[in-house]
Amino acid sequence: MLVNTSHPGNIGATARAMKNMGLKNLCLVAPQQYPSAEATARASGADDVLAGAQCCATLDEAVADAVLVIGASARSRSLSVPVLDPRSCAALVQRQADPSRVAIIFGRERTGLTNEELDRCHQLVQIPANPEYSSLNIAAAVQIIAYELRVAAQNDLNPSAPETDYASAQQLEQFYAHLEQTLIALEFLDPESPRHLMRRLRRLFGRARPDQKEINILRGILTAIGKKFR
Amino acid sequence: MLVNTSHPGNIGATARAMKNMGLKNLCLVAPQQYPSAEATARASGADDVLAGAQCCATLDEAVADAVLVIGASARSRSLSVPVLDPRSCAALVQRQADPSRVAIIFGRERTGLTNEELDRCHQLVQIPANPEYSSLNIAAAVQIIAYELRVAAQNDLNPSAPETDYASAQQLEQFYAHLEQTLIALEFLDPESPRHLMRRLRRLFGRARPDQKEINILRGILTAIGKKFR
Repeated sequence: MLVNTSHPGNIGATARAMKNMGLKNLCLVAPQQYPSAEATARASGADDVLAGAQCCATLDEAVADAVLVIGASARSRSLSVPVLDPRSCAALVQRQADPSRVAIIFGRERTGLTNEELDRCHQLVQIPANPEYSSLNIAAAVQIIAYELRVAAQNDLNPSAPETDYASAQQLEQFYAHLEQTLIALEFLDPESPRHLMRRLRRLFGRARPDQKEINILRGILTAIGKKFR
Repeated sequence: MLVNTSHPGNIGATARAMKNMGLKNLCLVAPQQYPSAEATARASGADDVLAGAQCCATLDEAVADAVLVIGASARSRSLSVPVLDPRSCAALVQRQADPSRVAIIFGRERTGLTNEELDRCHQLVQIPANPEYSSLNIAAAVQIIAYELRVAAQNDLNPSAPETDYASAQQLEQFYAHLEQTLIALEFLDPESPRHLMRRLRRLFGRARPDQKEINILRGILTAIGKKFR
């Protein structure tokens, strides 16, 4: 999933990198210039992946159905988010019952993902790089992650993990919105000075990866708090 | 080491991929078009690697000083040359007394290395790829090999995991007790018929492994709920 990509050549090169590694579900979120002859040229024989790419206006729309959202990040972030290396990331994806419901998100060429976009991510993946020159071309970053996914898939002869009915990204967003309203009503969260409270709570619940039943329990608790106030 | 590259953009992208992974000794054997503005543009901040590239007329000249020559090959070759995957290749390079005397050779965009060039190689490395679309862009292939070299070099340093200030078991128990009281007060949990509610919540928070700050936030929310009831 590429967010707000500026250069269409990078979109084409990404399609090629994916197809080389046997991946095909490319999603473009608000690409700045697309479709484009340059994207098609750089895709080379992977024009089918390009043609099949899903285009979305917003990241929320793009990840709505995903049960695991992983953001690619070049920078170290101040908040303690779990940061995986590409190999651990691939192992995690490989352990999912349905890897097609994992979204891996790559940000803008110059500036990467915004904090709001990173808040949508359950995990981050960071490619080890030269600290003095750490910004990879985006298609090169996709190439490395896709390569690790392929190696993990090939190495993995074990049956996949037991099916877990994870809450979707959309359900999580609804929970976070409900949680935020409740914390404001409790006067625990000051909307004028929210600091990093919601971000911290997102990290916490993101790590836990609630399933359907758990998210229903959490929503139920919030509803019970709301009733008591009435 | 790139042999007889047609597209200068690929030379620039290769320089960038190398510098991203902390490599700098680029060697160009009979490039078809070089120097070139396109190479410089695609090198981005790696123009120093590009400027420092050694240019040779022949492969023999380029590998003269190397003690280990590894050829990148997309195709399976009829001759029984040892073929490494990128990870084993990186491990082999890492075991060399002087890794700077290893040459890794990438052939032409369309046709790869000739049989005569492959004859110069002590080993081959092959990137696992989609059998239906196995030809990677050359800079993408360099990116994967360079990435594996960097990971192998880093693994040798044995970095320890970052310390996390996890909540203690006692702090977690105090939180669960507080949570349970709160849920009873909210009439969300019936102490006469608790079913598995607390067990489910323990599992959820146990997976997340809250740190000190997070457990303080959660306790703070419970305290805020308690105050509202008084």
